[in-house]
Amino acid sequence: MKKITNRPSGLQPLIQQRWSPRAFSSQAVAPEVLERLLEAARWAPSCYNEQPWRFVVAHASDAAAFAGILSTLVPFNQGWAKSAAVLGIAVANLNFASGKPNGWAHYDTGQAMAQLAIQAEHEGLKVHQMGGFDPAACQEALAIPEGHVAAAAFAIGYEGDPATLDPQLQGQETGQGERKPLAEIVFHGKFGK
Amino acid sequence: MKKITNRPSGLQPLIQQRWSPRAFSSQAVAPEVLERLLEAARWAPSCYNEQPWRFVVAHASDAAAFAGILSTLVPFNQGWAKSAAVLGIAVANLNFASGKPNGWAHYDTGQAMAQLAIQAEHEGLKVHQMGGFDPAACQEALAIPEGHVAAAAFAIGYEGDPATLDPQLQGQETGQGERKPLAEIVFHGKFGK
Repeated sequence: MKKITNRPSGLQPLIQQRWSPRAFSSQAVAPEVLERLLEAARWAPSCYNEQPWRFVVAHASDAAAFAGILSTLVPFNQGWAKSAAVLGIAVANLNFASGKPNGWAHYDTGQAMAQLAIQAEHEGLKVHQMGGFDPAACQEALAIPEGHVAAAAFAIGYEGDPATLDPQLQGQETGQGERKPLAEIVFHGKFGK
Repeated sequence: MKKITNRPSGLQPLIQQRWSPRAFSSQAVAPEVLERLLEAARWAPSCYNEQPWRFVVAHASDAAAFAGILSTLVPFNQGWAKSAAVLGIAVANLNFASGKPNGWAHYDTGQAMAQLAIQAEHEGLKVHQMGGFDPAACQEALAIPEGHVAAAAFAIGYEGDPATLDPQLQGQETGQGERKPLAEIVFHGKFGK
């Protein structure tokens, strides 16, 4: 496990250590462990408790299903994500049960995935979410019904050896990604203040 | 602190205990504690590390700023949120730095707020996010610039005594909210399977 050194002390330890690797070990994720990750997503908060999140997942051992999800990723992501133990697509239900559009469908699906990623850290696993996938291919390959959209793709697995990656990616496996300063994202009373 | 009994064992403890109360104590949140919550949001993952989240916050002690945010909530939420120690609006920057629309603006802002809520639990605090606010009023009152939208409102504080709430709300302070069964939200390989 990489030691992340560029984050402030006082962060909850799982938040402190969370990052998105591309190198995954070949170790499988036990079904009951994946289920706990999905339980963590399930217990996220949502607008009017609508729970707009849905998840399509595949263990690497389910070769056809895994290949189906992998095929929806952009080639660059396929290159490394093929070694993950689990691939998935987070799907957002765009409408409330009432039929009215849910303006928090993506927002709450993001919340659920953030809880999944924290639970993953708790289990010694890593999650790497991706925007680089083909939503149309996804709708087709995964039979996602109307009114639902593929919001994000994700890879789950145990942290691997960066040496297994393409040489130009190995140096990026530091866990030390940067963030904007707090002063650029937090304001008091009014935006910009 | 309420004991939540309707969630499966094996959930990471902060995820296990997280819920959204309406009763808050009158205890203030120290500025450095609020800063750690915002740090937790800051270190969330985001598409291309764009970090589309912005936060406008106000401590109750900053009466004008607090009233400004409170005024954007629907009356029902004003009724209980007026007693929170901190109010805030999570704002999503809708465009990438490149100028192209960011399809993950809401999704990633949701991820950041989920990390904020987990950090809050870690600090002994509670967060209650709200969809019940007036986005147009918010844009105006908080001077939110074009290309950004108020995605969610939130209240932060220490858990309070339900007896301080309107009688009809007191019975809802159980922390035992329900969720759809896992089988309704998780599929293997294809949606619906």
